Amino acid sequence: MSAPDPAAGPMAGPMDGAADGRADGVVDVPSGRPAAVPTPPPGDPRLARLSLNQWTTRRLGVAEAVDACARFGIPAIGLWRQQVAEQGLARSAELVRAAGLRVSSLCRGGFLTAAGPAEAAAALDDNRRAIDEAAALAAGCLVLVVGGLPDGSRDLPGARARVSDALAELAPYARAAGVRLALEPLHPMYCADRAVLSTLGQALDLASRWPAATVGVVVDTFHLWWDPALPELIARAGERIAAFQVCDFLVPLPADLLLGRGMLGDGVIDFRPVRAAVDAAGYRGDIEVEIFNADVWAADPDQVIGTMLRRYVTEVL
Amino acid sequence: MSAPDPAAGPMAGPMDGAADGRADGVVDVPSGRPAAVPTPPPGDPRLARLSLNQWTTRRLGVAEAVDACARFGIPAIGLWRQQVAEQGLARSAELVRAAGLRVSSLCRGGFLTAAGPAEAAAALDDNRRAIDEAAALAAGCLVLVVGGLPDGSRDLPGARARVSDALAELAPYARAAGVRLALEPLHPMYCADRAVLSTLGQALDLASRWPAATVGVVVDTFHLWWDPALPELIARAGERIAAFQVCDFLVPLPADLLLGRGMLGDGVIDFRPVRAAVDAAGYRGDIEVEIFNADVWAADPDQVIGTMLRRYVTEVL
Repeated sequence: MSAPDPAAGPMAGPMDGAADGRADGVVDVPSGRPAAVPTPPPGDPRLARLSLNQWTTRRLGVAEAVDACARFGIPAIGLWRQQVAEQGLARSAELVRAAGLRVSSLCRGGFLTAAGPAEAAAALDDNRRAIDEAAALAAGCLVLVVGGLPDGSRDLPGARARVSDALAELAPYARAAGVRLALEPLHPMYCADRAVLSTLGQALDLASRWPAATVGVVVDTFHLWWDPALPELIARAGERIAAFQVCDFLVPLPADLLLGRGMLGDGVIDFRPVRAAVDAAGYRGDIEVEIFNADVWAADPDQVIGTMLRRYVTEVL
Repeated sequence: MSAPDPAAGPMAGPMDGAADGRADGVVDVPSGRPAAVPTPPPGDPRLARLSLNQWTTRRLGVAEAVDACARFGIPAIGLWRQQVAEQGLARSAELVRAAGLRVSSLCRGGFLTAAGPAEAAAALDDNRRAIDEAAALAAGCLVLVVGGLPDGSRDLPGARARVSDALAELAPYARAAGVRLALEPLHPMYCADRAVLSTLGQALDLASRWPAATVGVVVDTFHLWWDPALPELIARAGERIAAFQVCDFLVPLPADLLLGRGMLGDGVIDFRPVRAAVDAAGYRGDIEVEIFNADVWAADPDQVIGTMLRRYVTEVL
């Protein structure tokens, strides 16, 4: 992997002459389409709020992802607990601090819908550990994916009530640790198996029992783009917005629905109005690119990041 | 195919001794699970509001589906335009009238999001024909699936506005024909490619410009079960409810998302609270079972209908 050279001119960025046969061509991945704009170089003010969610370059450990952010001039990173555990918590914190990166989020806690007391207690313990990790990393927030219906259950109101109860346990702990919890509403297609929290409105209702600095919400374009009430809900969210994640919605979705998140510009989402609404709501934090996609994961991480920088400029800003 | 014999006792209904090796066993399809209750016989008062949506037994033409309803004591049918066309409109109307069946709905019109004038005009023409067909069949309503984003478009508000404009053209025509239009909100996972109408709230907002007798809404459990606001929205819908469709939501969904609709009881939906809310809202019409599912379609139609009758009793009533 080689660093992009800010002095190399308009087509600076990772080269990929082989993919389209042009020695000086730059192509986007995984689409293979020619790059529409030069890759923004490190120091480009347009990158001031960009964050690389580590799952976008899933093959990279914390050290490699931090290195990539430094080389590409990305000022923030969204970390994942399993990679942090592999790297070591203290070492991960040291790496991001040494690189001068903000940790826009730690992904993720949650999974709070278990009905059995032992499972529920174990989930709370795990979330307390996640809060401690978020504190150690000085993460902007701990993202919570609340969990789906327990196996064999059809009691959706019950599962939702347990999330609320669990949050009542965790919010004081998070507050004492100086960690902001961020409730993430997931697309309704994941309601049964991943998150019974399905709309931004529902997340705001749930969060409203605690101060905004303790319990915020995640605005993720993939999960929320379809909501006819989205502009009003983002305005209502205001200072509750703890994280803003962008990735595209692919059509058709792949067989594994969890991997239907696309590179910016490869799907059906019109990002700019969402970003403008989030800005208008007062959010000034990082904009995380979080893509779960088998083709993105199979591609060269530097090419993925180069594409991400270009698409961020053309699709989101 | 043989008619179930009301006098045959508690296990009356289509027999399937082969599937579980018991000569007197009845199994549900496509699950293969033993039947939990006897099949309700023709004339059973619990079947008074049941309607067979023709797509549940997709292989059957209108004449065969009407015959199946008569044999099983199902008093209503939801017809599909393509099967009606194959049977002939006048003959289809005659068949349902002769059998004394109510036509709970005609599926379907809609697909109103085309941006080009020629395509938009063709869609309106097709919908006027669908309205005429619904009138000829004395259908309780014409179900409208409004359409997704046009190819290559990301303009969701634009597509939604075109649906509203098209409805303004069609509502007076429907009213003059004595046909009720029924706006069907589809699950948000179909927003891009099938229906930009994604919630019951959005459907009610759209319908509110016309009398409830002209433009109603469809409450379909598969599409709406996840909505945290569903009870309140059903109450708000009140006399706007033009059709109530039930089928289950399977987890995991199959690769073809359109076929993720399951036999009642095979998925994650708790039907009874939804049915109770629809009742409480004042709806007294038919309850249509509409299942799109490759395994259901592959099964023997009489077994599908027998299972449907049993599951309707155990899951919905």
